[in-house]
Amino acid sequence: MTARLAASVSFLDWMQQVQTGMEAVLDRFLPSPAVVPARLHQAMRYTALDGGKRVRPLLVFAAGELFDTPLPLLERAAAAVEMIHVYSLVHDDMPCMDDDALRRGKPTVHVQYDEATALLVGDALQAQAFEVLSGVTGADDSALVPRQLRMLNLLAQASGSVGMCGGQAIDLASVGMTLSLAELEQMHRKKTGALLRAAVMLGALGGKALSADEMAALDDYAGAIGLAFQVVDDILDATADSATLGKTAGKDAADNKPTYVSILGLAESQALAQRLRSNAHQALAPFGDKAQRLRELADLIVQRKA
Amino acid sequence: MTARLAASVSFLDWMQQVQTGMEAVLDRFLPSPAVVPARLHQAMRYTALDGGKRVRPLLVFAAGELFDTPLPLLERAAAAVEMIHVYSLVHDDMPCMDDDALRRGKPTVHVQYDEATALLVGDALQAQAFEVLSGVTGADDSALVPRQLRMLNLLAQASGSVGMCGGQAIDLASVGMTLSLAELEQMHRKKTGALLRAAVMLGALGGKALSADEMAALDDYAGAIGLAFQVVDDILDATADSATLGKTAGKDAADNKPTYVSILGLAESQALAQRLRSNAHQALAPFGDKAQRLRELADLIVQRKA
Repeated sequence: MTARLAASVSFLDWMQQVQTGMEAVLDRFLPSPAVVPARLHQAMRYTALDGGKRVRPLLVFAAGELFDTPLPLLERAAAAVEMIHVYSLVHDDMPCMDDDALRRGKPTVHVQYDEATALLVGDALQAQAFEVLSGVTGADDSALVPRQLRMLNLLAQASGSVGMCGGQAIDLASVGMTLSLAELEQMHRKKTGALLRAAVMLGALGGKALSADEMAALDDYAGAIGLAFQVVDDILDATADSATLGKTAGKDAADNKPTYVSILGLAESQALAQRLRSNAHQALAPFGDKAQRLRELADLIVQRKA
Repeated sequence: MTARLAASVSFLDWMQQVQTGMEAVLDRFLPSPAVVPARLHQAMRYTALDGGKRVRPLLVFAAGELFDTPLPLLERAAAAVEMIHVYSLVHDDMPCMDDDALRRGKPTVHVQYDEATALLVGDALQAQAFEVLSGVTGADDSALVPRQLRMLNLLAQASGSVGMCGGQAIDLASVGMTLSLAELEQMHRKKTGALLRAAVMLGALGGKALSADEMAALDDYAGAIGLAFQVVDDILDATADSATLGKTAGKDAADNKPTYVSILGLAESQALAQRLRSNAHQALAPFGDKAQRLRELADLIVQRKA
């Protein structure tokens, strides 16, 4: 990603350019596979490169475009949030958690390497995320430093025990339990919602100062797409096959985990996803045309097939 | 720790006050056990509070005293480096790594809780470390912000794949292998040395700007105590009992891991520890009397019995 893309680029072209660009950005911010310990670095690259829809980086870039965040900071934020996401998948797939053998169409890290390596890959990717986001941006702008600090704090909070890790703890504790819709929503707001929200906020916080109203509007948007993402995940888990998903389908039901589909049924879950998409669009109204990419990402999240 | 302690306080009193103070600091920077998910937060506190020699916080405070680092930043740095240390112990003790049941005289987290909780406790403590170090210090000094950013970058690097995690990967790969002394040293410079060095540097970087000579001298000191720490660890593992250590003794030999004692023998390992202590003292010469705490910490590291 050598330059900000013109607003005139179509959404699909923009998305593809961000996704392709992210490969280069992640390649640059991951340790070389030749550096000692080579096997660990190869395993980090095995799981982080060449895979995934890069939904969180897309959100970072779309929000960054709206608030004129400098590109070097956006790239670091996008790489950091994706590394946190990838580490969480590696640990989540381990035998003591979901025990899954397939991810993004490839054997999971503990299958391809071994359990200890999977543990260390996740740990090292989390550290790498904070290293990348705290690195020197090269942008000659001292105003960026306090913004970086705020972004680091936000990412750490979203990743930790009141965010993503906390959501996973609740998820584990809820196996075989009957959750109310409110409890399910509470879990997902942490488990997947916190990091999706962080992606939107990281993109925005790196740019010009946000008013309280703008912050609240972005928060509404992020909350709506975060939940929509999970509702659609549950729908796909119940309806798609493993080859399409690139991960084991039907896993939630097999694991006796409560999902939107198990609580609401399929039709009502689909209606909920559409309502959340509409909420996300409404939240963006104050930003006008400039928020078009974020609007289209809400559509993507709800309409995706994998 | 409400105030910096006077230089006239004896080393043992100073040490005890820092150790007691750290309990309060960690208590303050860990999520409340009442906050959801309560079990995860209780497990984080179970492993982080009320235990350990707090060697890394002692190094942070001693280096901070030398460079006049403001107390609110020192407290955050000390808590952050200790949280990274504690998370690494929790993951290191898991069945897929060293599979140990005893740590700091208590059952390890995966024994007391379960494996999935141990995984999440470690992940969440790492995030918490970066959250604490990126938090608002309350010290009314805008010069602190770029320092905090540099400290975050240093801690992330020391924790990650070219630091602590990398050292653990090399350690795992070296089970049953014959390592040369140089290879053993290389492993320990990453596995334990990187974070001990980070503790010294974090304390220093939060204060007045360091000259290149001062930085190099501190680096020599940190390198020497880092290795000394590991040499003494190997000596204790071979000579002390589990009750004294608070962890399983004789584990390295049982696990067929190369150690200083297995390569050099006991007497030569003890002589090496003394040489490293002397190197650490020499490195501190340019700082004069003000570095007394750091000198005494080198003595403590070499003379400890557990």
